[in-house]
Amino acid sequence: MGNTLGKVFRLTSFGESHGEAIGGIIDGCPAGLKIDIENIQKNLDRRRPGQSEITTQRNESDKVKFLSGIFEGETIGTPIGFIINNHNQESKDYSHIKDAFRPSHADFTYYTKYGIRDYRGGGRSSARETACRVVAGSIAQQILANINIKVSAYVSRIGNISLNKSYKELDLRLIDNSIVRCPDNNCANRMIKEIEKIKNDGDTVGGEIIAVVEGVPVGWGEPVFDKLHADIGKAMLSINAVHAFKYGFEGLDIVKSRGSQVNDVILDTKGTTKTNYSGGIQGGISNGNDIYCEVVFKPVATLMKAQETINIDGSRINLEGKGRHDACVVPRAVPIVESMLSLTLVDHYLRSRLNKV
Amino acid sequence: MGNTLGKVFRLTSFGESHGEAIGGIIDGCPAGLKIDIENIQKNLDRRRPGQSEITTQRNESDKVKFLSGIFEGETIGTPIGFIINNHNQESKDYSHIKDAFRPSHADFTYYTKYGIRDYRGGGRSSARETACRVVAGSIAQQILANINIKVSAYVSRIGNISLNKSYKELDLRLIDNSIVRCPDNNCANRMIKEIEKIKNDGDTVGGEIIAVVEGVPVGWGEPVFDKLHADIGKAMLSINAVHAFKYGFEGLDIVKSRGSQVNDVILDTKGTTKTNYSGGIQGGISNGNDIYCEVVFKPVATLMKAQETINIDGSRINLEGKGRHDACVVPRAVPIVESMLSLTLVDHYLRSRLNKV
Amino acid sequence: MGNTLGKVFRLTSFGESHGEAIGGIIDGCPAGLKIDIENIQKNLDRRRPGQSEITTQRNESDKVKFLSGIFEGETIGTPIGFIINNHNQESKDYSHIKDAFRPSHADFTYYTKYGIRDYRGGGRSSARETACRVVAGSIAQQILANINIKVSAYVSRIGNISLNKSYKELDLRLIDNSIVRCPDNNCANRMIKEIEKIKNDGDTVGGEIIAVVEGVPVGWGEPVFDKLHADIGKAMLSINAVHAFKYGFEGLDIVKSRGSQVNDVILDTKGTTKTNYSGGIQGGISNGNDIYCEVVFKPVATLMKAQETINIDGSRINLEGKGRHDACVVPRAVPIVESMLSLTLVDHYLRSRLNKV
Amino acid sequence: MGNTLGKVFRLTSFGESHGEAIGGIIDGCPAGLKIDIENIQKNLDRRRPGQSEITTQRNESDKVKFLSGIFEGETIGTPIGFIINNHNQESKDYSHIKDAFRPSHADFTYYTKYGIRDYRGGGRSSARETACRVVAGSIAQQILANINIKVSAYVSRIGNISLNKSYKELDLRLIDNSIVRCPDNNCANRMIKEIEKIKNDGDTVGGEIIAVVEGVPVGWGEPVFDKLHADIGKAMLSINAVHAFKYGFEGLDIVKSRGSQVNDVILDTKGTTKTNYSGGIQGGISNGNDIYCEVVFKPVATLMKAQETINIDGSRINLEGKGRHDACVVPRAVPIVESMLSLTLVDHYLRSRLNKV
Repeated sequence: MGNTLGKVFRLTSFGESHGEAIGGIIDGCPAGLKIDIENIQKNLDRRRPGQSEITTQRNESDKVKFLSGIFEGETIGTPIGFIINNHNQESKDYSHIKDAFRPSHADFTYYTKYGIRDYRGGGRSSARETACRVVAGSIAQQILANINIKVSAYVSRIGNISLNKSYKELDLRLIDNSIVRCPDNNCANRMIKEIEKIKNDGDTVGGEIIAVVEGVPVGWGEPVFDKLHADIGKAMLSINAVHAFKYGFEGLDIVKSRGSQVNDVILDTKGTTKTNYSGGIQGGISNGNDIYCEVVFKPVATLMKAQETINIDGSRINLEGKGRHDACVVPRAVPIVESMLSLTLVDHYLRSRLNKV
Repeated sequence: MGNTLGKVFRLTSFGESHGEAIGGIIDGCPAGLKIDIENIQKNLDRRRPGQSEITTQRNESDKVKFLSGIFEGETIGTPIGFIINNHNQESKDYSHIKDAFRPSHADFTYYTKYGIRDYRGGGRSSARETACRVVAGSIAQQILANINIKVSAYVSRIGNISLNKSYKELDLRLIDNSIVRCPDNNCANRMIKEIEKIKNDGDTVGGEIIAVVEGVPVGWGEPVFDKLHADIGKAMLSINAVHAFKYGFEGLDIVKSRGSQVNDVILDTKGTTKTNYSGGIQGGISNGNDIYCEVVFKPVATLMKAQETINIDGSRINLEGKGRHDACVVPRAVPIVESMLSLTLVDHYLRSRLNKV
Repeated sequence: MGNTLGKVFRLTSFGESHGEAIGGIIDGCPAGLKIDIENIQKNLDRRRPGQSEITTQRNESDKVKFLSGIFEGETIGTPIGFIINNHNQESKDYSHIKDAFRPSHADFTYYTKYGIRDYRGGGRSSARETACRVVAGSIAQQILANINIKVSAYVSRIGNISLNKSYKELDLRLIDNSIVRCPDNNCANRMIKEIEKIKNDGDTVGGEIIAVVEGVPVGWGEPVFDKLHADIGKAMLSINAVHAFKYGFEGLDIVKSRGSQVNDVILDTKGTTKTNYSGGIQGGISNGNDIYCEVVFKPVATLMKAQETINIDGSRINLEGKGRHDACVVPRAVPIVESMLSLTLVDHYLRSRLNKV
Repeated sequence: MGNTLGKVFRLTSFGESHGEAIGGIIDGCPAGLKIDIENIQKNLDRRRPGQSEITTQRNESDKVKFLSGIFEGETIGTPIGFIINNHNQESKDYSHIKDAFRPSHADFTYYTKYGIRDYRGGGRSSARETACRVVAGSIAQQILANINIKVSAYVSRIGNISLNKSYKELDLRLIDNSIVRCPDNNCANRMIKEIEKIKNDGDTVGGEIIAVVEGVPVGWGEPVFDKLHADIGKAMLSINAVHAFKYGFEGLDIVKSRGSQVNDVILDTKGTTKTNYSGGIQGGISNGNDIYCEVVFKPVATLMKAQETINIDGSRINLEGKGRHDACVVPRAVPIVESMLSLTLVDHYLRSRLNKV
């Protein structure tokens, strides 16, 4: 279980990194949506390895193939099945970890949970699975674009480099101008240097992505358990390597503020507020202002350095770093963050149709 | 929708703060559990208003009444229905907000979403609803206690006061020794003073709660979307006033660390790791080490000060602070955090029974 | 698990027949519905024991009490919690079955499944639980009435007495004119005599209820697994004592017909068909014609006669018939059938809002 | 929505009959199951068109291809993705129905529901989709076989030909000896003649399938809504052309029986009953006896005769019968009935692991 996301707009995904293929089924996509397949492919390319000098040189083409649910370019209300074939897998790269549990990887937990695992390249625990999220998320993003909602995400921190500007000071159309996906050119260059330095050390580093949604109307999100920010938080935390999530209170340590400093005064019946500390959500329901959140990534666990660990039989071993891996996955995670946000928003958009008699 | 939590151990809750009663149904509680009702009541008392000089003086007794599912002191596998009657409601206190949208409250979003709202004391958006979570969460905690799992939570920050110690240096049995629920006596006293100062200003302040779970075996949590930390994160973010969630990396800013510094070396086939940066979870699945997470609360929005806002018809008004409210809800939120954690863990505990043929 | 019905309009119920109370939570009821509580109570009275000379003389008043979700007479989008207190329970009546497994009852299966059971009057397996379905179903029926959909059900067979008329020849407004709920006066009288005869023998008898829905527009129901008739069928089969379900093909043994005899010729773009063999559903989706189905009830298992069975320790015993029980529950099941049909239809009505972009 | 079946063992399917492929994802299959792929393929062959002289001569090979979830022949706990490519589709056969709504087909309801449809061969409403059910159902059947549970189904009626024997008098190993899948040789031959006669008329005919499960232990099934027979009933009614479902009371018209005639006397603490009128289920929970049910199929709507109907613009047209179709689908539906039964049983088998603390 656990391979389905959403209540009424639902993505179920499958696939191990070195199996035949990965793929998914989108159930609940409304009929009559013109699908822009090029746009989906573009987002897959933004996620794929080997896209620039700061990412791994594994060159996976990641071509999505739709199998159902789309007829003459339009959704027809039936489930959208899709696959992405696995190739260029070089399974032999992974023979050295067949019996080893890599530190801070899921090898040990999967093996113990299931009594068996596909050890090749992480199997199901590989971030390769997120390609399916990008396919479905891009369709969700197209639904949102149709009603004039714009979802953006960009890299705001890498290691010791921080972008100390509000999203309002940035031109979010420039995000993809740099390979690190930070819309501030100067900061982007410093981030790239930071990644290169760490890559040269055979080490890895984490970072932070900020996501902003403009145009969400008032009324999306459900009281109590399925609060909009709770569902967004879950979606983000389900991305590989994400370790923290925050919404609202841009640039602030909330704990140090007082209520009188951060309450958002409402100005009109559209819900416009003087400030937007709440990050566009009140009581779990969108309030018509920009949705704002921060997603924090730990450094990935795969190092190009030797590490101590144990074998399947408990004996201590020294594990050499092998293969081709990212020193920092955060730039490639930008389309994943956009996708998870879009999937969650569309689910709540559709649910909001059920509000009133 | 949105009033149910969990996949196989499910809490559905109902109730507005000033309606007849609040309550819930727990579906999926296994049969044969001896229920300690006194323990449940004790947790309700830890959550209720009026319990100490730093909480609101509204004195709600919050007596839970079980209606089904328990026979001769034991669960029988059928749904556990329960109610907590509302009284001492003083609805007249809320007449001044009947037509007003309080800043940073859910008044405006509920009204716009549904076209109607129960304005008395926040209605469904009131944190009173969390009493139902404590009832169900206490039962979940009893299930965990039966298999030697200990769930603890304590206040680690209030305003400018921080507890700068690892949970391992603390005696978690002392948490309830102070009214602020910080197990370090010195720090607790400083927190109490901080709250009193802010209360005297008619203002409010947020804080942070740290939660720790000892004894979870390897193998709880599902790959991909229902990762253990993603479900815990959603549960926490669904608590009123929670704005951020982090798991693992105690005391660290993850972004500034390198992979080689924070990988957890595995020492034996039980999964013991030399360090526990991962917070007890790898790839979304528990790894046998302590589960560690941090939950951040914003200052509550209800002030004892006048605030600008608008009326239902859009006219600007000045809203006086009235009623009896907490300057800081964080100490009262400790049992809620424990409850949400326990509910999520029991759901995954039961799901883990389905792992193997 | 298993105590929730519906995907977006959801009823979760709780309660044992001789516990404190039974009740439920309706989640997903749209806001802005004026609730007619008298109508709900009327349906409860149609279901309750002791309502006429052909039903059991247990006189349960079954007053529903709403605890949330309704404010000033209108739904507000939050979950509707309700309870019906149990009284007049005469638990002592059941002491003789404390250790016995009654034939064709759920005593043995519950006990073996859970290792424990509330033996008093069937506990959770008692048909008393259906009162909660009637409360929620009546609200669903009110939602349907608002959009001019009329749900009717009537008794068409009892023992050897059959009503050999099409529903089109009947005046469905006359259903409640007879205590047996058959709208044909002559047939109703024969049914009443049949029941009285069987009652005098201390025996029980089953029957059939026909349900008809007028006014459902084209497009409710989902392809593949959640076909409209599959969900209706499940809802009906979940009613105590129901053993068979059929939709469409009124008065026909389908197997003996040929395709050319029973295909429904479409006459216009509203979907009007020359005949309505399909019972208003094509490919699992409503086609704009009347929905028609048949629900078959077995004779209830509780007899006023002695029966052989075994004790909890396996020893053979003779169980005397005791208490006050119905010789035929079918007339009382009419509002339950209407309720289950209404719950299913409203769920699909709301889901149909998600069809198109 | 509506393309997922099951609560913990879940099949989600996709695919239109003339799209690229059909397929599905099985989520919740426990790890450690050795998969017998030949057996799955054999069941697909039992379902496929063109398998004998009484079925359509469309010769679809229906080779299933597994893409994930199985590693070195064994399930690994991750979702099992699979596809079956569509070919030999002869889409041109369907050009004549592009703008026509065939009588008693889903053309009109799909078109009105979604505003668009894939008209080629029924698209999503085609029974081709049931191949995915057979793939997943065969895996479910293998799980059951491992714990010594045997699922059988056979044809008991076709048109005017009935098999008037109890399943206990039959040798269920002989089912596949006849192309009509009736284990009584004499009756099978009469059924084959019945089908041939109707086929020669260009007409179609329905039938009945009886399903029997031996070896289910006591305790599967949930009280109230998810009763075992209610879930089985829904599963059966979701199969194309199924119009009625009955469980228990083999060979009886339940309505005409009295309680004293059909109560099942319990003989021992294993739950053995003297008779098995209840069809192996009491109060929605398996009681340890054989599970018995009947599934009724209407004649399929596609005739080789001309039929009146309307066009998309409402004009009356005469639709010629074209293509290659079955005069009777019931023999091919036998593996589908077994599959739906197996899927439902495995879901409840896994759920039964959650019964007790």
